Amino acid sequence: MAAMAGPVIHHRTPAFAAVLAEVQEGLRELFGTTQDVLVLAASGTGAMEGAVTNLLSPGDEAIVVNGGKFGERWTKICQAYGVRPHEVVVEWGRAVRPEMVAEALDAVPAARAVFVQASETSTCALHPVPALAELCRRRDTLLVVDGITAVGVIDLPMDRSGIDVLITGSQKALMLPPGLAFVALSPRAWAATEQSRLPRFYFDFRRERRGIAERSTAWTPAISLINGLRIALTMLKAEGWQNVYARHDRLARATRAAATALGFRLLAPESPSPAATAILLPETIDGSALFRYLRDRMGVTFAGGQDALKGKIIRLAHLGYVDAFDVVVAIAALELALHHFGARVELGRGVGAAEAVLAEGLPPRT
Amino acid sequence: MAAMAGPVIHHRTPAFAAVLAEVQEGLRELFGTTQDVLVLAASGTGAMEGAVTNLLSPGDEAIVVNGGKFGERWTKICQAYGVRPHEVVVEWGRAVRPEMVAEALDAVPAARAVFVQASETSTCALHPVPALAELCRRRDTLLVVDGITAVGVIDLPMDRSGIDVLITGSQKALMLPPGLAFVALSPRAWAATEQSRLPRFYFDFRRERRGIAERSTAWTPAISLINGLRIALTMLKAEGWQNVYARHDRLARATRAAATALGFRLLAPESPSPAATAILLPETIDGSALFRYLRDRMGVTFAGGQDALKGKIIRLAHLGYVDAFDVVVAIAALELALHHFGARVELGRGVGAAEAVLAEGLPPRT
Repeated sequence: MAAMAGPVIHHRTPAFAAVLAEVQEGLRELFGTTQDVLVLAASGTGAMEGAVTNLLSPGDEAIVVNGGKFGERWTKICQAYGVRPHEVVVEWGRAVRPEMVAEALDAVPAARAVFVQASETSTCALHPVPALAELCRRRDTLLVVDGITAVGVIDLPMDRSGIDVLITGSQKALMLPPGLAFVALSPRAWAATEQSRLPRFYFDFRRERRGIAERSTAWTPAISLINGLRIALTMLKAEGWQNVYARHDRLARATRAAATALGFRLLAPESPSPAATAILLPETIDGSALFRYLRDRMGVTFAGGQDALKGKIIRLAHLGYVDAFDVVVAIAALELALHHFGARVELGRGVGAAEAVLAEGLPPRT
Repeated sequence: MAAMAGPVIHHRTPAFAAVLAEVQEGLRELFGTTQDVLVLAASGTGAMEGAVTNLLSPGDEAIVVNGGKFGERWTKICQAYGVRPHEVVVEWGRAVRPEMVAEALDAVPAARAVFVQASETSTCALHPVPALAELCRRRDTLLVVDGITAVGVIDLPMDRSGIDVLITGSQKALMLPPGLAFVALSPRAWAATEQSRLPRFYFDFRRERRGIAERSTAWTPAISLINGLRIALTMLKAEGWQNVYARHDRLARATRAAATALGFRLLAPESPSPAATAILLPETIDGSALFRYLRDRMGVTFAGGQDALKGKIIRLAHLGYVDAFDVVVAIAALELALHHFGARVELGRGVGAAEAVLAEGLPPRT
């Protein structure tokens, strides 16, 4: 935050070009790619739109894995641009099975792209991206992955996994305020941008790539956020990427252990995301009231459910700057609030279960 | 800057809804409109693109006032989206004459919109927006104004002037880092969004307007920048809008007086922008070398010229947080650098001429 409050260097200067070059190096490590990582002044949805408009042409067919609010967004973007989406509908809370996508690819052999979330934030389920990449690699179909709550959370090396387009945003694993979106393209995705005939201007990826070659950006960049990004990448690199992924996994397991110990079911038990956990609330509890009580009276903000899940789940994020004691506080607050709302809760039971997992992350005694 | 380094409140909370409501009120004053002012996570070019895609349909005709790099950008956006731009080409450094636009409107009676900059940043010329608004008001043609270096710099009340779309960005008069774009639409521009058939998603103005009705935004907003915006608007309101405009005018006149006293010609002498001043350098001076010397050796960053003007002009910004002593420093640095480069310069002459104007802004003796 302090770095973002520093001087706003003019963006067409050698001083800022050096910042861009430094973050480019860190972003390539983060994405696991030798390709350029474009830095856009936008939130993640802008990069999602750009992935559609830079790769496809009017009337193209595409397969969309729709297992939640963000999967649905791919469909809406396709529709807005005259691309024909074929949805693989996945029950909220479940991960797509690769066979379902294979069937869709067989049914729509002309599909130019498969759009998916690595981690579907609305349900806290993790889709099997590497398996989908393998399916797409065998065909002339691009795999486009919204990695907004996955990049920097799980080990998802773009080049090695065979992902064609990978997207993230500043406000999740990167610990920054929202306002930056990032996207990288594989060589075959770059080739597709040469053929694509959908209109784009602000999100013109080829123009942004030319910008990177000149250590610049196509349009005025969000300078202060990029100054913060430089620090965030330095922090993550110092921690070590594998340690970062292990931390997310540990916090997620601690949260799931706590929920289970308290007798709750998870919305996504089979393929849970290490970014956030969705807990199904008992039907006797008014989830919306619980959520408001936690936020407004106890000062602990959870995320609620959306659409059909409104009032039925509560979501705990454990990515980015969330640490072990944030998880402890969240679980303790949940125990206390549920107790206050008349649920049968053994106070401390969830926290204890979480601690049993969090203990793994303790530094050695010296 | 300190406000932007504060906690990043979650954007779907009453606390952040209150921030959005407060900035909405300030933005309406700034724009001089009773309409909603949309707040986009993007730089200004994104709002320019949105103005094209939300108002027009494929094959529509439009008139573009092209008097510099940013005028040219309207043409490029139109072309990217299959809109047919008819350019009113204006010599760089000049303002468009309303008759030129009237002629274009007569020649292309089907033109759906006129696109123009209020202040063309690349040449530092001010276009006569109120006169153009009057021309458009008499027809079924929308006037779309890029006010990125004009809103908050000059008195340009949108509703009273009859502007249909007005755009600005965070990094100019609003004194913030880049990363936010703002746009407001007149009732007849909103009506046009109902008819428009160009594709859009991230920059879907109607979706953003629904967001404002719910004290929210369509997509994740750039929270920290909006926290800064709240403070910036408070500062401007405390200064008083007319005082803000008078300050910009005074700094601009001081800069022009200095340049003239030093024997230089201005690129835009007839209709100069109060946002920035472009000074034509003598042919004997290598402008690019002068610019680099000022920036890299003296620590004073000017803007150079673009395209055909590269190396031929030097631009001084005097908007936003630039104050009287920034102008003094810029002129003194220019005098010293020119002297060092062998130009005949009477040291202090430009500064003296600037001071004679800046004296107008001194507070009264008490």
